[in-house]
Amino acid sequence: MNINRILAAENRLRGHSRVTPLLNAPLLDAEIGRRIFLKAECLQKTGSFKYRGARSALSALDAETRSRGVLAYSSGNHAQGVALAAKELGINAVIIMTNAAPTLKIENTRSYGAEVILYDRASEDRDAIGATLSEDRGLVLLKPYDNPEVIAGHGTVGLEIAMQAGAHSVSDAQVLVCCGGGGLTSGIALALADRAPGFRVHTVEPEGFDDVARSLAKGEIQHNARNTGSICDAILTPAPGEQTFPILKAHCGDGITVTDAEAMRALAIAFAHFKVVLEPGGAAALAAALFRSQGTSDIIAVGSGGNVDADVFAHALAQHAS
Amino acid sequence: MNINRILAAENRLRGHSRVTPLLNAPLLDAEIGRRIFLKAECLQKTGSFKYRGARSALSALDAETRSRGVLAYSSGNHAQGVALAAKELGINAVIIMTNAAPTLKIENTRSYGAEVILYDRASEDRDAIGATLSEDRGLVLLKPYDNPEVIAGHGTVGLEIAMQAGAHSVSDAQVLVCCGGGGLTSGIALALADRAPGFRVHTVEPEGFDDVARSLAKGEIQHNARNTGSICDAILTPAPGEQTFPILKAHCGDGITVTDAEAMRALAIAFAHFKVVLEPGGAAALAAALFRSQGTSDIIAVGSGGNVDADVFAHALAQHAS
Repeated sequence: MNINRILAAENRLRGHSRVTPLLNAPLLDAEIGRRIFLKAECLQKTGSFKYRGARSALSALDAETRSRGVLAYSSGNHAQGVALAAKELGINAVIIMTNAAPTLKIENTRSYGAEVILYDRASEDRDAIGATLSEDRGLVLLKPYDNPEVIAGHGTVGLEIAMQAGAHSVSDAQVLVCCGGGGLTSGIALALADRAPGFRVHTVEPEGFDDVARSLAKGEIQHNARNTGSICDAILTPAPGEQTFPILKAHCGDGITVTDAEAMRALAIAFAHFKVVLEPGGAAALAAALFRSQGTSDIIAVGSGGNVDADVFAHALAQHAS
Repeated sequence: MNINRILAAENRLRGHSRVTPLLNAPLLDAEIGRRIFLKAECLQKTGSFKYRGARSALSALDAETRSRGVLAYSSGNHAQGVALAAKELGINAVIIMTNAAPTLKIENTRSYGAEVILYDRASEDRDAIGATLSEDRGLVLLKPYDNPEVIAGHGTVGLEIAMQAGAHSVSDAQVLVCCGGGGLTSGIALALADRAPGFRVHTVEPEGFDDVARSLAKGEIQHNARNTGSICDAILTPAPGEQTFPILKAHCGDGITVTDAEAMRALAIAFAHFKVVLEPGGAAALAAALFRSQGTSDIIAVGSGGNVDADVFAHALAQHAS
C-alpha cells in the first residue's frame, strides 16, 4: 500500500464520491480553547464514508469479475455503501444480513438495489451461506476493511483533509478517527503521511472495545472479548485487520477511548454547533477531541457516519443539549 | 442591482464564506419520483445564509464608516451573521434585541463579539433606541434584507447553485427558497437569471404569512396581518422589501406556502436522508419540494438555516420519523 494507490482511487472516485466539508465552529473553539474541525463524512453518499471504499474496490474489479457480482456481510454502513456503488456500476450485489437487523436498514439496502439474504444467527452459519453463494454464483467477497482498494478509497478522506486543512492554515494538527477494523484510519494515515507528515493520527474507539488501542500498545493484533454492548455499533469489530494493522502501527500514535456517554454528548454538540447528524460511533472522534485530548494544537475529528435512529438521536439531545 | 454586484460580493466573500454542499439522496428521489437537491446553507458559518449578506455589506463599507461601527435589529440569524462578520473585519457591532429573545441566542450573539442591547417590547421603542444610538455613536444601520450589498452577498448562493447543478447535469429545475423579506430569494433569482436562465425560482412561506406570495399575485407589496404564530420564526417578516420586491416580481414564479406540520416533517426527512440539521423555517423550501410541487423536473430546495432548539428538533423527530 502506498500513496499511488490512493491517488488512483481518487481518480476513480472523482465525480462520484462527495468532497465532504471540513467544518468549524468559532463559538465552540472559543469555549474549548483550541480549533476543532469536523470532517463531515456523514454527508457522504449513503450517510457514511463506507461508500468511498466500496466504490474504489468495485471500480477496480475487472469486467469478468464485475459480471459475476459481489457479496458482502454487513448489517450497517458497509452494506449501504456496497449496494449503492454496485448499483451505480451495474454490478449485482448480494448482502448477507442477520434477520435481527433493523427493518429500515434491510429496506434501505434493498432500495439501493442490492439482493438481501437474511440468516438466523442462532441456527445458521453466515460464512457457510456466503461460501455456498460464492461457489454457486461465482460472487467475489468484498471485505469491509481488509482490502487494499477499500483502504485506498478511504484514503481519499485523508487527501481531502490535507487540502482543506491547508485552506484553514492548519499546519500542525491531531487527526482523530473513529476506528472499527481500521480501514478508514489506515487510509487517512497513509494519505497524511505523504501530504501532511506533521499531522498526528490517532484511532478512537469505545471503552471496552479498544482492540486497536491495545494492539498498538502491544505491537501485535489483540481481540475484543465481545462485539456488542456499546451504543457505538458502527465501530465495534473483533480486531484490527491483517492489512490495516501494519499501517496503523507504522503511522498512528496511541489509541484513544471514549465512553458511550461522551459519544452521545458529542453527537448533541455536533447538532448544536456543526448542524450535522452523527451516529454515536461517528461521533467518537469528536468526543475524543472534546473530552480526551490535552494541549492547544488544532484538532481534526472525522465524523464518519450519520445513520442513526431518530429515537437514539432525540435521546442524546434530551440528555445533553444545553 | 445586477450580476456584477453579486460577482463583486463573491470576490469579497472568497475564503470567508463556506461553499456549502448541494446534497442529494437517491432513496428519497426514488420514493418521490424526481431528483431533489438540498443546498445546505445550514452549514454556512453561524448556521444560516445570513453571514453572506452581512459579510458582503460590511466589507463594502469605507474605512471611515467601519471605524464608527454598525447597528442591527435582530433576535435571530441576522444578529449572529452580523456579529461574526463584524468581528472578523474588526468592526464594532451593536445588536438591539428584545429581552424576550432566548438566552442562548443572546449569549451566542455576545460570544461572536457583538455588544447586545436589550429592550422591553411592551414599554420601549426599538427604533427610538436605534436612532439615539446612531446619532450618539455614528453607527450605521445594517438592514437584514433591503440593502443591495446584502442581496448581492446572498446572491452568491445562486452562483454556487448554478455551478453545482451543472456538476449534477441539472439543466432544468425548480429552485425553491425559504422566504422572509426576500433578500435570499432575490439574490438567488438575480444570479440564476444570469447563470442558469432556464431555472424557475419560487418563494416558499408559511401558511398565514404569505405576504410575498400575495404581493407577487397582486403585483404590489402586501403585508401580513401578524408577525408571530408560526414555528417557522426565521422567515416571518411583515412584507417584502422595497428593494427586494421588484427583483422578485421580475424573476420569480408564483409563491408557494407550506404548513407548520409540513415544515416539521421536512425537517425530519432532512435528518434521515440528508444528515443535516434544519430549523423549521429553513426546512420550508424542502417541504414545498416534497409536498407542494407537481411534475417530475429536478428540484433544488435551499435549506436556509439550522439554528433550532433541541426540544423543537426532537419533537419533529418524534412526530414524523418513520
